[in-house]
Amino acid sequence: MRKLRMGMVGGGLGSFMGGVHRKASALDGMIELVAGAFSSTVEKSKATGRELYLDENRCYGSFEEMLLKEKELPLGERIDFITIVTPNHLHFEPAKMALENGFHVVCDKPMTLTVDQAKVLQDLVKETGLLFALTHNYSGNAMVKQARQMVVNGDIGDIIKVQAQYLQGWMADELDEQASIKPWRADPKKSGIGGSLADIGTHAEQLVRYVTDMDITEIASDLGRIGEGRTLDNDGNLLFRMENGAKGILTISQVALGEENDLAIRVYGTKGSIKWEQENSTRLVVQFKGEPEKTFTPDGYGIYGNVREVSRIPKGHPEGYLEAFANIYKSFATHLSAVLQNKEVENLDYPTVNDGVKGVQFIYAAVDSDKNNAAWKKPSEF
Amino acid sequence: MRKLRMGMVGGGLGSFMGGVHRKASALDGMIELVAGAFSSTVEKSKATGRELYLDENRCYGSFEEMLLKEKELPLGERIDFITIVTPNHLHFEPAKMALENGFHVVCDKPMTLTVDQAKVLQDLVKETGLLFALTHNYSGNAMVKQARQMVVNGDIGDIIKVQAQYLQGWMADELDEQASIKPWRADPKKSGIGGSLADIGTHAEQLVRYVTDMDITEIASDLGRIGEGRTLDNDGNLLFRMENGAKGILTISQVALGEENDLAIRVYGTKGSIKWEQENSTRLVVQFKGEPEKTFTPDGYGIYGNVREVSRIPKGHPEGYLEAFANIYKSFATHLSAVLQNKEVENLDYPTVNDGVKGVQFIYAAVDSDKNNAAWKKPSEF
Amino acid sequence: MRKLRMGMVGGGLGSFMGGVHRKASALDGMIELVAGAFSSTVEKSKATGRELYLDENRCYGSFEEMLLKEKELPLGERIDFITIVTPNHLHFEPAKMALENGFHVVCDKPMTLTVDQAKVLQDLVKETGLLFALTHNYSGNAMVKQARQMVVNGDIGDIIKVQAQYLQGWMADELDEQASIKPWRADPKKSGIGGSLADIGTHAEQLVRYVTDMDITEIASDLGRIGEGRTLDNDGNLLFRMENGAKGILTISQVALGEENDLAIRVYGTKGSIKWEQENSTRLVVQFKGEPEKTFTPDGYGIYGNVREVSRIPKGHPEGYLEAFANIYKSFATHLSAVLQNKEVENLDYPTVNDGVKGVQFIYAAVDSDKNNAAWKKPSEF
Amino acid sequence: MRKLRMGMVGGGLGSFMGGVHRKASALDGMIELVAGAFSSTVEKSKATGRELYLDENRCYGSFEEMLLKEKELPLGERIDFITIVTPNHLHFEPAKMALENGFHVVCDKPMTLTVDQAKVLQDLVKETGLLFALTHNYSGNAMVKQARQMVVNGDIGDIIKVQAQYLQGWMADELDEQASIKPWRADPKKSGIGGSLADIGTHAEQLVRYVTDMDITEIASDLGRIGEGRTLDNDGNLLFRMENGAKGILTISQVALGEENDLAIRVYGTKGSIKWEQENSTRLVVQFKGEPEKTFTPDGYGIYGNVREVSRIPKGHPEGYLEAFANIYKSFATHLSAVLQNKEVENLDYPTVNDGVKGVQFIYAAVDSDKNNAAWKKPSEF
Repeated sequence: MRKLRMGMVGGGLGSFMGGVHRKASALDGMIELVAGAFSSTVEKSKATGRELYLDENRCYGSFEEMLLKEKELPLGERIDFITIVTPNHLHFEPAKMALENGFHVVCDKPMTLTVDQAKVLQDLVKETGLLFALTHNYSGNAMVKQARQMVVNGDIGDIIKVQAQYLQGWMADELDEQASIKPWRADPKKSGIGGSLADIGTHAEQLVRYVTDMDITEIASDLGRIGEGRTLDNDGNLLFRMENGAKGILTISQVALGEENDLAIRVYGTKGSIKWEQENSTRLVVQFKGEPEKTFTPDGYGIYGNVREVSRIPKGHPEGYLEAFANIYKSFATHLSAVLQNKEVENLDYPTVNDGVKGVQFIYAAVDSDKNNAAWKKPSEF
Repeated sequence: MRKLRMGMVGGGLGSFMGGVHRKASALDGMIELVAGAFSSTVEKSKATGRELYLDENRCYGSFEEMLLKEKELPLGERIDFITIVTPNHLHFEPAKMALENGFHVVCDKPMTLTVDQAKVLQDLVKETGLLFALTHNYSGNAMVKQARQMVVNGDIGDIIKVQAQYLQGWMADELDEQASIKPWRADPKKSGIGGSLADIGTHAEQLVRYVTDMDITEIASDLGRIGEGRTLDNDGNLLFRMENGAKGILTISQVALGEENDLAIRVYGTKGSIKWEQENSTRLVVQFKGEPEKTFTPDGYGIYGNVREVSRIPKGHPEGYLEAFANIYKSFATHLSAVLQNKEVENLDYPTVNDGVKGVQFIYAAVDSDKNNAAWKKPSEF
Repeated sequence: MRKLRMGMVGGGLGSFMGGVHRKASALDGMIELVAGAFSSTVEKSKATGRELYLDENRCYGSFEEMLLKEKELPLGERIDFITIVTPNHLHFEPAKMALENGFHVVCDKPMTLTVDQAKVLQDLVKETGLLFALTHNYSGNAMVKQARQMVVNGDIGDIIKVQAQYLQGWMADELDEQASIKPWRADPKKSGIGGSLADIGTHAEQLVRYVTDMDITEIASDLGRIGEGRTLDNDGNLLFRMENGAKGILTISQVALGEENDLAIRVYGTKGSIKWEQENSTRLVVQFKGEPEKTFTPDGYGIYGNVREVSRIPKGHPEGYLEAFANIYKSFATHLSAVLQNKEVENLDYPTVNDGVKGVQFIYAAVDSDKNNAAWKKPSEF
Repeated sequence: MRKLRMGMVGGGLGSFMGGVHRKASALDGMIELVAGAFSSTVEKSKATGRELYLDENRCYGSFEEMLLKEKELPLGERIDFITIVTPNHLHFEPAKMALENGFHVVCDKPMTLTVDQAKVLQDLVKETGLLFALTHNYSGNAMVKQARQMVVNGDIGDIIKVQAQYLQGWMADELDEQASIKPWRADPKKSGIGGSLADIGTHAEQLVRYVTDMDITEIASDLGRIGEGRTLDNDGNLLFRMENGAKGILTISQVALGEENDLAIRVYGTKGSIKWEQENSTRLVVQFKGEPEKTFTPDGYGIYGNVREVSRIPKGHPEGYLEAFANIYKSFATHLSAVLQNKEVENLDYPTVNDGVKGVQFIYAAVDSDKNNAAWKKPSEF
């Protein structure tokens, strides 16, 4: 086999997410970046390519050009997949065109602006059989995987209660600079109908589903729009209910002053409970009925075998955000390599187009509930 | 002056809360227990008195007897106030009779079973001018007081978001022993219409009001009744809104397996934020705009003068639950001593009959909201 | 039985330790303060007594007067024991006279200024059979007791390594106010030959011995005297070796800027390890071979029965410094009550005159080692 | 410019450190692995190369062969530097030969087995002007760099006390498997005269020097050799003194059961103090005189500009062991790129051959001190 060949959509010089995706995809030596439509002009795109030591001929001025030109190259030389790291409103078109032209896709979240778009991609993936990974990177953390495995194995019994939160403060901290950082984040045309809901809420929503291995069936949402002239939510409190009747609560904010990236989840069951905090990502606090609190760590004692494999280094040596992000790419690359070699592969573990659909439905349901004074809404009906 | 003289209602041998109130009231040497109606029979009451080295003649078989007999004693010898440490349904009658007979009152929470009863006591306090303290002990913690003072002084700006939780696991942990521990807790006739709402929810509610110095105006409540045949709530998720429009979220549970006594609050403002956890009661985590996170400690740097006075020992020496509880008694005793000497006193800081009314209204609103699928309800309208 | 009757030596108005001892001794309702030689003049002593609502006739101008006058009172009315809360150089005389006159003794640490004095008290206790408690309060913490019990029961196997520290910063923090706070602390005539060694080092030394249930056989000591004109140590680093050959390390300081009261111990054995920090006194972190880290809490799961009894309140409700201090008094009072009733009593658990001797020997050995450039010295040979 | 071209010595399939160095060097897209002498036979070396998608012609059977063959290639095609990831006893020869043949060097620690060897390399680096980086990876952490910068800028005043520790438990945890993991670790011929001293002690020693910006002038060492037939130290307690007279204490162990990778440092100064723990690598706890404790985080508030640049991702997103490791490579690559382009470069920040010499001197001094019952020894005299 060989390294998989990746083309990037977006991620020009100065783009934060471009650098993250490049580092994460390179970490395990399974993927190499060979082409890109990094910016809206070919000159800018080539400038980025030069910084990355790429062949300038494969630095394109648009994703359309990249997909068409690369398609003409022989398999093994041409890109195997694209990774989409553009703002939210620029996910759908390149994803659609890539799938229609036989390229696998890695895409940032939220997948699309609308539920309709999301379902188009879902249908295309079904029809073409191509792979589609959505980079819900936090579920790539070893301790999140341990949490899920403990739930799936029944270690904490039936789930009765879920508490989740995702709190950031940068919109309050850096109010003046806000426009310059990510102008599209405050613009409904580019962000879609959800603000923080889309930006961080979907991460929390996916984390809840991933860890509990259950769907969220109903939500009631009370959103905040803090600051003058703010049209999109930047704060929100939600009640939710899950498949098995368990109740949950979720709070999100990007104006929670002082918070850096406080994504956290607690799951309570009939036999035990688990707690995880992204800012202390290498600790999973577990309480089993009648026992003292236990702290599980990556590669530590009591870790499931499939979770242990996720760690690249021995216990006590922290892995962080990039490593969790890289786990999405690694699992996707392992799958794609197997597909290209007509091999079977087990333990696939990365978010897919279906997570993308659920994420956008969640945004729609939350916005609709909020408009109706926190009336209960079912995401699956959107 | 002299020590204040206290008569106890409830708190017989083996009663947990009786011991807590006795230790807390004795801690500062301002109050002495001289009488009690500890149990439902005079024999049992005297047995408790003997253990406490009390005068048996002042160990009574009922609170009525105690109040009537003590009333005949001269001031300075008779009890100055009663403290009520009985189960919830036995708060109202002794409180009412004490107020009607000129005795000041300390009462455990929730104050009464019904809003009507609560308002009767509120009226009586107003009419008689007698003192009434409600033992919401958690607001006695130095770091809670520092949090409140920082809010009141505007240190964190306008409040925009509040997150609170009170999670215990003992009902799940000790399911079999539950009946034997506190049988009245599962019995609506003795607990009132709220289960965990009354037992712990009102603590969280009072903490939110105390720290933010604002009322909760609206709540939407989704309650859980985990376990077979359970009629009262033992779990709940609530959205709430405050006087100034700030939104909040609250989760409570007594079946959150593994949790010991996880009462916690976070308050986010336009200039900073504060976080406090009862299980780490001596740390207050504060974040001011544009500064690194700060941790305030009792008697440490940056503590307000009125808060520093609350600490009995120098920084680094933990004070805990009993000391916080004692702060309620100490503040009440300071007030009562001043009243008895016709002195003025400043900085009164203990929960009163008004907190009792609000607590019961909160329970009523939450139960009603839950019956209506989490529709918004205003506590003040109950 | 009745409450035990206590006379206090020292602890006049404004004395910090006086208040601590009064609160701690009162907490459990087993002891009442009935007499005192609080200050060096009878007027001042009576002034303190008035604040405490004591009988002025039992407020004396000297400990000699108190011991002689009280001795004339009938048993049951006279004080049963004295508690000595004076500066270090004023421990020996009242302790000696009390023992010689049939009074039991509670004494603050370090017990005496010199090893010779310490051995005099040790001999007197042996001869008279009177009880003697030394208030090494930190060993009164429930989690310290759990640690010791786990060691004694062999839960962590043979001890191979011990790490201890006691770091404060107040001498650096409050340099200007230092003189006014505790003038005797910097004066060798009043403190003895050890500065921080005596003030906090002996606490660490006793904690090591208490938790490991072993003696320290050898120490090598490198002391610091930070600041101009400083003659007594206020900082120190020590190597030590224990009875079974285990090696240890200890660092102490009162100029560790920013530290409040960071007393901590770690004990490593062949089957597990334990860690405790005074500032997080309600958590004991334990690691057994091949298992995830466990956190034990007072009254929590896995706590030994004799340790559980030490907690006054249920799990999750922090107890702190005063409660740990009170546990010394409670254990002493339980013992003394049994003695007065000619009863047997088990599980006696308070530091004694022997701990006092070892503490002073430790100071002597450390100072001598430091003078000899950290040569090894045996405390037992001093 | 182009990517720098790296040849690896050691790091065959299954080697842990090989994978770490490959991931760390690849992370920032500045270095590409193009050649290797991964194993002791050319077949094994090529097998590793295939897994890494390398040109088989550049997978060599020995470092000698690699250096000689690569030297024949034109600059820009040939390797720019070698990275040495072999066991300790195989560092010296390839490093020496590389320097003698014009190749820059990255080398794992401890640099050599003997002080003599270390000085040979030091002289060669001086003579040739070639670059030499020693992978003391922990000093690559952003919060370690912030700590150093705060010390250098005088933020905490004059240093008066240093406390360091490096505790692992895997030798106790995995006793049976020990031989299979790293057989050379227990073999003096391959490890040198230091066991844990070399393996982890030198990391702590370098961390102390890096953060304080001072040399360690004297040490007194009490080493442990826990377990039957153990000849090399696996535990140790050390006193030390620094250039300015500050005293310090260091404890290390690889038999501290339950510890994962507990490297930690505290530095106390006349104006403040700092604390860092590798297992919580993204927090730096700082206390300034008279202020509440502050917690600094990567890319957070109050971070120095040169430290902020070290973070690849925004605050709240943990970076870990690999990122810190990569920072050594990144700084080295930045330097080497500048050298190759005849450019000036500022803020060089990676450990060099001089750190290597000091590390081996530290081991020698510690072993000699231990042999002399913890007598003081000066590392610089070895």
